[in-house]
Amino acid sequence: MKIHAEAFRSFATQVLQRLDVPRQQAADTAAPLVWASLSGIDTHGVRNLKSYYVDTVVDGQIKAGAQFNIEFETPMSARADGDNGLGLAAGGWGMRLAIEKAVNTGIGLVSVRNSNHLGALGYFAELPVEHDMIGICMSGKLYARGNFRGMAPVFSVQPMFGTNPLAVAIPCGEEPNYMLDMATAVVPVNRVIKAKELGQPIPLGWCLDANGLPTTDPAAAKVYLPLGSTRETGAHKGFGLAMLVEVFTALLSGGFADTPEGYDQNKIAHFFGAIRIDLFRDPADFKAAMDAMMRALRSAPPAPGHERVILPGDIEHETAQQRRQSGIPLTEQEVSELRWLSDHYDVPLELMS
Amino acid sequence: MKIHAEAFRSFATQVLQRLDVPRQQAADTAAPLVWASLSGIDTHGVRNLKSYYVDTVVDGQIKAGAQFNIEFETPMSARADGDNGLGLAAGGWGMRLAIEKAVNTGIGLVSVRNSNHLGALGYFAELPVEHDMIGICMSGKLYARGNFRGMAPVFSVQPMFGTNPLAVAIPCGEEPNYMLDMATAVVPVNRVIKAKELGQPIPLGWCLDANGLPTTDPAAAKVYLPLGSTRETGAHKGFGLAMLVEVFTALLSGGFADTPEGYDQNKIAHFFGAIRIDLFRDPADFKAAMDAMMRALRSAPPAPGHERVILPGDIEHETAQQRRQSGIPLTEQEVSELRWLSDHYDVPLELMS
Repeated sequence: MKIHAEAFRSFATQVLQRLDVPRQQAADTAAPLVWASLSGIDTHGVRNLKSYYVDTVVDGQIKAGAQFNIEFETPMSARADGDNGLGLAAGGWGMRLAIEKAVNTGIGLVSVRNSNHLGALGYFAELPVEHDMIGICMSGKLYARGNFRGMAPVFSVQPMFGTNPLAVAIPCGEEPNYMLDMATAVVPVNRVIKAKELGQPIPLGWCLDANGLPTTDPAAAKVYLPLGSTRETGAHKGFGLAMLVEVFTALLSGGFADTPEGYDQNKIAHFFGAIRIDLFRDPADFKAAMDAMMRALRSAPPAPGHERVILPGDIEHETAQQRRQSGIPLTEQEVSELRWLSDHYDVPLELMS
Repeated sequence: MKIHAEAFRSFATQVLQRLDVPRQQAADTAAPLVWASLSGIDTHGVRNLKSYYVDTVVDGQIKAGAQFNIEFETPMSARADGDNGLGLAAGGWGMRLAIEKAVNTGIGLVSVRNSNHLGALGYFAELPVEHDMIGICMSGKLYARGNFRGMAPVFSVQPMFGTNPLAVAIPCGEEPNYMLDMATAVVPVNRVIKAKELGQPIPLGWCLDANGLPTTDPAAAKVYLPLGSTRETGAHKGFGLAMLVEVFTALLSGGFADTPEGYDQNKIAHFFGAIRIDLFRDPADFKAAMDAMMRALRSAPPAPGHERVILPGDIEHETAQQRRQSGIPLTEQEVSELRWLSDHYDVPLELMS
């Protein structure tokens, strides 16, 4: 079964509104899910609507009618309270604020505390691109007293960070935009969970087990290795990037805060940045040079056994072009969850076979 | 043999002035070499004075009396021409400009084209920190038609990027400052050259040979793998970061430019960024939270076989404390080069045994 992107957008928006999520926040939550599923990032799309967002609003973990609140700002920056609302809605709000500031001053940087899961960060990073801006998005979580899974500091096996992702989008002219959307761990948690569901092993270099030993068993994965995998091949760099994400999200926003039990971070924090290209040069000239760089890299001869060079964003761009026509493919589990939501909230669901 | 940091600073500055490098540029070139050697980053310190900087000025590859020139600017940004001068001198100039803009507006971003080797980027990233700013530094090179060594695009083995490094420094209160200073390749070129000089093998996951096969022979290394090493363990992320560095350095500055033979980059490009913490919150509160994060991470129990958690910047900070007292240790080759420079340019050299 499949679903058309616009049918899913409308469906998800309506379901969320049934939970008393305000219209704008419901649309802002649906949009990155549509974007992820269109782009082939299936771990962050349709799959998460019920379990990540609907269920958590229903059970009260996430506030349906959150009031995003600017706690401090300058013409080019802000820190805000996400009011424990939907992370995806805080994301749309936060990046629009960053873009507005960049339109006015050249740069907009917004750090948001007290929020929730931000999904596919690439969606947010891409929003400034149509304004001839570079877009930056990060999401960070620090467990000051450890967690049952996550990234551990170098030479420790106690998980302390989430997989703290980071995305950057940069406008091109005729070429697909540059789009880097990465966990600072080797892989995001959902990649390992998906392998577990499929009964597949995971490669060495992704995770360690509870004893700190390398594992290929997704069920045993506890420590998510930082990009670089081992100290010898640069894991300290991946961990350093995870800390950087933490600073821009939770430290600049005040999300990592002093409590009676000491400093800790209770919810997820985000960062949204927009930088106008014309702070440096004419955007048309810049985009022509971007196109030339992309083409130069693409013209490198492929390695034996490979057909072509793949640049960041290529696969997602091509998948989106195809799925916009043919629809978003759904797993049985996804179909079953969408049907349940349709029945339960009385929202019509239009699937394609 | 050893040399005291201040003795080396004075010696290097005087030698460069003998080559008609202006006084400020000579001092700016010496400072990051002192910093690198003090910090234990021996691949980027004393070792490079003669071969990277003196020899290249003498043979005319690098201009001694470069005029750094702002080609376009706004109150918070600039792009500049490095006039084919010493990269380390352009670095000091560029980061001071970024800091000055940040003092005035909150943010300073400076992209510099037509420059040369920037050495240890951490030195430059750290300059804004004493002003309660986050410091960012990058250096990028794209070989549009390939090179004999460097990073290749994912699924190609044609080297096209340098190891495009990136550094970020963030102020702490009582803890040593956060300092991430990394090549976006698994290792910088000098690490492999040093292994070759010592007759040591390199680990798998660092480099490929001319046939695109993994190699442990430093003499055979041609393709420098991006951070992540293989596609399965995230090399596309390291390569995406190398592209990001390229954009902030050579694309924003115009260093990757249209020529009669098509777009190419003839020299190295840099980026310098300074962001005031008080765009978001009181710096004292921020630094208290930074200290708390560092301490929380340090308190994670060490993995079996390890004594303690190591955070980005720790080793460099500790090494610098020690070497500031005991002096910078020198290899025989370094002693011999320093003595040659002393004789040749008639600059007194004060070594310690």
